[in-house]
Amino acid sequence: MEKGTYTYRVEPRDVDFSRRATFAALGDYLLHTAGEDADRNGFGTRELSDRNWSWVLSRMAVETERMPSEYETLRITTWVSDYGRLVTTRNFVICDGSGRRIGGAVTCWAMIDLGTRTAVDLLGALGDTARVVEEQPPIERPRKIGSVAPVETVARRVAYSDIDFNRHVNTMRYLEWMFDMFPIEQLAARQLRRVDINFLHECRFGQQVTVGYQPGDRSLFEVRDEQLRPACRASVEWL
Amino acid sequence: MEKGTYTYRVEPRDVDFSRRATFAALGDYLLHTAGEDADRNGFGTRELSDRNWSWVLSRMAVETERMPSEYETLRITTWVSDYGRLVTTRNFVICDGSGRRIGGAVTCWAMIDLGTRTAVDLLGALGDTARVVEEQPPIERPRKIGSVAPVETVARRVAYSDIDFNRHVNTMRYLEWMFDMFPIEQLAARQLRRVDINFLHECRFGQQVTVGYQPGDRSLFEVRDEQLRPACRASVEWL
Repeated sequence: MEKGTYTYRVEPRDVDFSRRATFAALGDYLLHTAGEDADRNGFGTRELSDRNWSWVLSRMAVETERMPSEYETLRITTWVSDYGRLVTTRNFVICDGSGRRIGGAVTCWAMIDLGTRTAVDLLGALGDTARVVEEQPPIERPRKIGSVAPVETVARRVAYSDIDFNRHVNTMRYLEWMFDMFPIEQLAARQLRRVDINFLHECRFGQQVTVGYQPGDRSLFEVRDEQLRPACRASVEWL
Repeated sequence: MEKGTYTYRVEPRDVDFSRRATFAALGDYLLHTAGEDADRNGFGTRELSDRNWSWVLSRMAVETERMPSEYETLRITTWVSDYGRLVTTRNFVICDGSGRRIGGAVTCWAMIDLGTRTAVDLLGALGDTARVVEEQPPIERPRKIGSVAPVETVARRVAYSDIDFNRHVNTMRYLEWMFDMFPIEQLAARQLRRVDINFLHECRFGQQVTVGYQPGDRSLFEVRDEQLRPACRASVEWL
């Protein structure tokens, strides 16, 4: 098994007012890389869908030394470092066009049967360990985020532009909702160090959700669904 | 002068619940194509920014026979058919991977001086007519959309995830806001035939805007800014 490297260019639509990629755009490139590499190795969503299985992202951690600028080249190298019955770990090193490392990421995935909505045994599904690259994650694994006590909340109705083919909210849309709650001066003045995300529950089309924000040294966020169940939590640390 | 052809693949993040590209995603590919082709021919935003000039999209029309599906190849061919002092016309033919035409588009652009916020004379700026391909637009030019009488409105605050490097709302975000007002059954059951868009005025970060929807044979939309000035109008026709 080998690592895969995928090259992108930061497009005008990916950048914010500082002309650097938004966190959601960087996250989209990571998820795209995961999809491509899984595909290339024969366990992508298209193969899985024949068996009515799908990958589900449960946790993600991203660290950045700097956010890439508009028109910059990104080279993202990815590998799967381990898998057990329920969870597999996919890792990423993010480099700029000159090969200098500017960040890293770790993601945890489960596989579910879309018919029964139950977990698929990865040891059975993926077979042997030839699918693993014996190299440890480049940053600390995604942390579990405990309860969040929002001091500010925004209500949203999940709309057409928020959803994917499953009528679930797009993964990076949760992060857009969260980042929209930061004072823009903070986004202008400070540099992201690390973001941890826990995906707990999917929000669906038409639901009324609330996005809660708890400021602090670590900014904490929680999206709750209509039944007030936590759907997604994140913690954001700044340099 | 030659036409340029640019190839894309419809990615999972581009599709809606029907696994076909959203209108906003298709529009983004058209705008990306315009940017690339202008760049390749020496009048892209990066060259213009040295003189503190920028392209501004004033109108757009898109016709589709079908929306492309997830993972499909798109080949977009583009050319500038004419320009006068104030406006230039850029055209697009959209083909699928097998070369079959599935749509066309026409866009009208002005150039502005970002310092004075006034129009730049295109005849002076672009010089000779060697920049034109003598071929007529592939579909009817974008229509002017008159006043809209909304029967339904939604208020929105322009947030961080909505804006570009100018702190103006991203072009395709207006269309996302509009499409979010359609009943989802309509989006599921019907096929887009033609969309006309007039960009009248830019909405900026922090503004409270309203999105208005007037149903009918032609669905009409209008986004108004905080001063109730029309910022963007669109008309959507269905097959």
